[in-house]
Amino acid sequence: MINRLCIIGVGLIGGSLARALKAQGACGEIVGYGRDAERLDRAVELGVIDRYEMDMAAAVKNTDVVLLAVPVGSMQSIFEAMAPHIDATTVITDAGSTKASVVAAAKRAFGEVPANFVPGHPIAGTEKSGVEAAIDDLYRDRRVILTPLATTSATATDTVRRMWEAAGAQVELLEVKHHDEVLAATSHLPHMLAFALVDALAKMDEKAEVFRYAAGGFADFTRIASSDPTMWTDICLANREALLHAMRLFSDELGELGAAIEIGDVDRVRAIFERAKSARDGFCEKLNYAKE
Amino acid sequence: MINRLCIIGVGLIGGSLARALKAQGACGEIVGYGRDAERLDRAVELGVIDRYEMDMAAAVKNTDVVLLAVPVGSMQSIFEAMAPHIDATTVITDAGSTKASVVAAAKRAFGEVPANFVPGHPIAGTEKSGVEAAIDDLYRDRRVILTPLATTSATATDTVRRMWEAAGAQVELLEVKHHDEVLAATSHLPHMLAFALVDALAKMDEKAEVFRYAAGGFADFTRIASSDPTMWTDICLANREALLHAMRLFSDELGELGAAIEIGDVDRVRAIFERAKSARDGFCEKLNYAKE
Repeated sequence: MINRLCIIGVGLIGGSLARALKAQGACGEIVGYGRDAERLDRAVELGVIDRYEMDMAAAVKNTDVVLLAVPVGSMQSIFEAMAPHIDATTVITDAGSTKASVVAAAKRAFGEVPANFVPGHPIAGTEKSGVEAAIDDLYRDRRVILTPLATTSATATDTVRRMWEAAGAQVELLEVKHHDEVLAATSHLPHMLAFALVDALAKMDEKAEVFRYAAGGFADFTRIASSDPTMWTDICLANREALLHAMRLFSDELGELGAAIEIGDVDRVRAIFERAKSARDGFCEKLNYAKE
Repeated sequence: MINRLCIIGVGLIGGSLARALKAQGACGEIVGYGRDAERLDRAVELGVIDRYEMDMAAAVKNTDVVLLAVPVGSMQSIFEAMAPHIDATTVITDAGSTKASVVAAAKRAFGEVPANFVPGHPIAGTEKSGVEAAIDDLYRDRRVILTPLATTSATATDTVRRMWEAAGAQVELLEVKHHDEVLAATSHLPHMLAFALVDALAKMDEKAEVFRYAAGGFADFTRIASSDPTMWTDICLANREALLHAMRLFSDELGELGAAIEIGDVDRVRAIFERAKSARDGFCEKLNYAKE
């Protein structure tokens, strides 16, 4: 049970956690913090948060847990605004899609990474954004990865773990670097492919006539290209190194496939498709924990 | 009204057309042709076809329309088997995903492309295959592209158009080359990306642990990598030139995006994402005709 939770950035991610904890009775008061009074008013109206503060000192005062649910590019300025005011006992966590960059931002803002800061990443979301899209079961049966450092307080990690578990999530611990590599491969790279594909097609055909003949598979495949451009610019620059590495591996693979098609190497082409189908069918079976 | 339809290859595509026409009372007898008696028996049991023949002369005899619903790589041998037996008045069509290769196969088999042959392509399907997966509304509100040549009989084209319309589809005419370019971009290229992505990730991580952290977006994005490897090997070799062209355009785009990420060019990265989101949101609005 968290007595008071402060959510910095009350959008889809922060708002959905607030809704889930309220639905479970797992949290006393939920205080929002942001810069847009209209949106914060809306979050109160919707019952997502109990009240809000636009002053950081007031927002984080006497709070058990502070969640930063802001774009990864905004983490450092939030940490800096928070640093002079936050109690030593308050547990800090975040919901950023990259972890090394957030840990580095905390270090720069606080001088050293606070022992009560537990870096986190809920693997959930939709291509929608904003508090209106927040739902109480966004995290149900989804994974949340925490990446505590050697210096992170075990008690703080446990508090954050229990918070996400109350929201229905399955919590796992990973090292920061491993997290960033895995997410570059399974999330950031697919987003780059979807964005690049749709942009390439739009360029290919000014009248966008090409999209008239797209089938359901194309709509599924490109769904993530409808994600928020600013957030994704942030993410891919924050995880630049791991992402570029994954993009190079992918390009090598695509080049290999293209070469096999070009020379008409039936066996090689089919072998790539068969390995891919087998891996995809395999992991979808294992995804029985998921909504999918 | 078609009195007798012969379906060569009674799987998802041919079987779903049979089911749709039967549901609409738009066809008298439906005769299946194939090489696997067990599967053909199953198709009769399921009520998809009325009877079957394993001899081509018997299968195409006294038939109004013959549909080839076989992998594009098998079209030529089917045309060759059919050529000595088919009536001059029988309309021939196909459901292949590529059109230039099928037209070339018809030309090689018949000496010249028959005036009664109307090349076609229903833009529908699932990652499933086989007659058990056949459903009567697979084509409902989906597009079917016909690519008649200058030498194709207008009456034959009209017969095929009405057949697909009876199955609920929206029929459009395109030139063969244009069809192959558009499909390379919106269907064949996305399949290559999905297959290459899953194979690259599977190689990256022998234990497939990377897939544990995949979210719903990844499952959507990679759904088409569960498609049939043999069919897709056929398709990408049959549409090699247009596909390689689309793959090169895509690789250039991805290279441009990678370069912008590498030098941290925020504006350029965001511009690519914004154009893609805008194009994707735009075409999904227009997809109101579709189930999606």
